[in-house]
Amino acid sequence: MSLALALGRRGLGRVWPNPAVGCVIVQGARIVGRGWTQDGGRPHAEVVALAQAGDAAKGATAYVSLEPCNHVGQTGPCSQALIDAGIARVVVAITDPDPRVSGAGLARLEEAGIAVTRDVLALQALADQVGFLHRVTLGRPMVTLKLASSFDGRIATGSGQSQWITGPQARRRVHALRAAHDAVMVGAGTVRHDDPSLTVRDLGIDRQPVRIAVSRRLDLPLMSNLARSARDIPVWICHGHDADANLRSTWEGLGARLFSCDAHGGHLDMRAVLEALAAEGLTRIFCEGGGMLAASLLDGGLVDQLVGFTAGIGIGAEGLPAIGAMGLSHLQDAPRFTLRDVTPVGPDIMHVWTRA
Amino acid sequence: MSLALALGRRGLGRVWPNPAVGCVIVQGARIVGRGWTQDGGRPHAEVVALAQAGDAAKGATAYVSLEPCNHVGQTGPCSQALIDAGIARVVVAITDPDPRVSGAGLARLEEAGIAVTRDVLALQALADQVGFLHRVTLGRPMVTLKLASSFDGRIATGSGQSQWITGPQARRRVHALRAAHDAVMVGAGTVRHDDPSLTVRDLGIDRQPVRIAVSRRLDLPLMSNLARSARDIPVWICHGHDADANLRSTWEGLGARLFSCDAHGGHLDMRAVLEALAAEGLTRIFCEGGGMLAASLLDGGLVDQLVGFTAGIGIGAEGLPAIGAMGLSHLQDAPRFTLRDVTPVGPDIMHVWTRA
Repeated sequence: MSLALALGRRGLGRVWPNPAVGCVIVQGARIVGRGWTQDGGRPHAEVVALAQAGDAAKGATAYVSLEPCNHVGQTGPCSQALIDAGIARVVVAITDPDPRVSGAGLARLEEAGIAVTRDVLALQALADQVGFLHRVTLGRPMVTLKLASSFDGRIATGSGQSQWITGPQARRRVHALRAAHDAVMVGAGTVRHDDPSLTVRDLGIDRQPVRIAVSRRLDLPLMSNLARSARDIPVWICHGHDADANLRSTWEGLGARLFSCDAHGGHLDMRAVLEALAAEGLTRIFCEGGGMLAASLLDGGLVDQLVGFTAGIGIGAEGLPAIGAMGLSHLQDAPRFTLRDVTPVGPDIMHVWTRA
Repeated sequence: MSLALALGRRGLGRVWPNPAVGCVIVQGARIVGRGWTQDGGRPHAEVVALAQAGDAAKGATAYVSLEPCNHVGQTGPCSQALIDAGIARVVVAITDPDPRVSGAGLARLEEAGIAVTRDVLALQALADQVGFLHRVTLGRPMVTLKLASSFDGRIATGSGQSQWITGPQARRRVHALRAAHDAVMVGAGTVRHDDPSLTVRDLGIDRQPVRIAVSRRLDLPLMSNLARSARDIPVWICHGHDADANLRSTWEGLGARLFSCDAHGGHLDMRAVLEALAAEGLTRIFCEGGGMLAASLLDGGLVDQLVGFTAGIGIGAEGLPAIGAMGLSHLQDAPRFTLRDVTPVGPDIMHVWTRA
C-alpha cells in the first residue's frame, strides 16, 4: 500500500478533476502490475495496473489507494475491471466520498466474492487526497499557501525589491510545489509588482498548472507575462461582478477565462472564488501571495497547508509584510497550524504546517 | 579535545570576564583529570583538572580548549602549573588573543620541554569562545538576538498581546539560552509592555545573568519587575547623557547600575553601549528585543548570532514587527546570516543563524 500511495502521488497536480490514485497488483510475492492515474485523470490507476499484469492478475491481490470507482463514465467502472480480471483480494486505503462511489465500489467487489480490506494506511491516503476530498465534501479545493520571506516575515523591501530573498534551491522547491498542484494563484498586487509567469520551469515537466489571478476590478496589466502567454497556458481570472465590461472582453480576447464572483466590503469573497474553482474541477491550489490575498485566505479559514521558506536576511519594518491586515486583536482568534516538517533548503529553511 | 570543549561550554554565561575553558588530562588510555573554568572565572580549568589528576599528571597529556594563561593574576599562571605537575604534552584548540597571553603561554611550555600541539578542533573552539574573543579583539561582547514570532514575523497582536505566541518548550529553550549568556538585554518598550523579569527559571540554576535595559531617557516604570528586584539580581541600565538626574538617582537608589552612553539621532549608539558593557567584562549578551532594539543592533552589524523561534500562527500586518524600521531600501544592504541549525521545538521551530 505504501508503494500504491507513492505511485498515486505522482499524479498530484496532473489528474484533476479526478483523484490521484495508485494501484499495485501482487501475485504471491511478486509485483505484477503498477499503475497510477494518468495525466488528465484517465485511464485510472487500476486499469493501468491490470493491463500491466495481464493474466497474472488472476487470483492476485490489488492494493489501491482509493476505493475503485463504480460509475460508468468515459470508461467502465474500475470495480468491474478488477472483477473481470479475476482479482481475488482488494486492499484499499480509504473509501471514495464521491456520492457516485461512496462504498458502492467495494460493495460490488464483495458481491462478486472478492475479499476486501479497508483502512490500510488511511491517514497517509487522507493527506494525499485532501484536495479531492475537499472538492467532493466541502465544495472547494485544498489551498496551500506559500510564504517566502526574510526571517522577520517580509516579502520585499519598502521599495518593492523582492528578487531574491530566498535562494535558488528554495525557488526550485517552489517549482516542484507548483507542479504538484492543479493551479497556481496570486493576487492582483503580485501580478502588478512582480509580473510573474507562474509556470513550472527546469523540472522537465510538460503539463503546466492553471494560472489564476484574483483581481476584483480586473485591472491587471495587459502587457504582463500572464496576458501575453494566456493563449499557451491557461490563465483564469476571478473578478467581481462590477468589473469593467471592456476589460472583460479584452481579457477574454487575450485567451483568459473569467469567473465573476461575489465580493464583500471591497474584497472578493475568497470562499466564493474557491467554490467557483472547485466547480471547474480544481482540487489543489497553490497560492503564492501577495500579502493581502494571504490575509484573506487565512482570515477565512481557507488555508489547509502552509509552506514557509525563511531566508537568513533581515529587512525591517518598512518591508512588505508576508501577510496583510487581518483585523486580529486577540491571539486566540489567530489561525493556527501544526508543524509537519522543517528542513534546510540551500541557505534557507523550509517549514510545512497544516491547519490545526 | 572534543570532551575538553564540551566541558568548557559548561561555563558559558557563568565565568565572565574570563573565557569558559575546558581541560582533560589523559595518562595512557585513561582520563585522570577533567576540569572547566568555575563560576566567576576561577579557578581555571587546568587547575581543576590537575588537582583531580594528582600524581597521575606526571608524563600525561593535557587537552585544553584555549591556550593556558601565562600572567600572574589572582593565582599563578596555568602554564607554570602544567609544568610543575610534570605534564609531558599539551594539546590546545586555539591560542589566547589576550595580549597578556597571546602565545606566551605555549612558549613557556615549550621552553620547559613540553611538546605542544596547536589548532585541534579550532573551528569549534572559535565558535565557543566568540564572546571572549570579541571582547578582547573588538572591544564588544558577542550578541545573540532572539526573535520569537508568528510565521509572519510578528511578536504581538496590534493590541499588544504577546503571551503566548510560542509554546512552553520554546520558552524553556529561551531560559537555557539566557543561562548560557553573561547578560540578557531588552529595550525600553519591552520593559514597558511586557514587564519581564528576565531571570532564568525552572532550570535549577542559581547564578543569574545580568539584566540590561536600554533606555535613552531612562523613563522605565519604577514599579516594574526589574525595578523591584534590582537589589537581588543585577540590573544595568544604559541611558543617554541627557537622562534626567532625578531618574538617575532614583534608579541607583533601587540598586541598578547606570551606564551613560552616546546617542545619535535620538537613539543610543549601540556600539557605544556594547563597548561600555565589554569594559565591564561582559562577553556574551542575549538580546530579547523588542523590535526597535533588534533593528538598531542589526542595522549596526552588531548581531553575531540569531535564534529564531517560529510558531504556527498568523497574526497579520497590524501585529507588532519582530524587527523595527531599519531604513533599508536595497536587498543587497540587508544583514545576512548563515543557517547553523533548525529543529522542531514542541509545536514551534527553532532556527539558529550566524553572521554571514
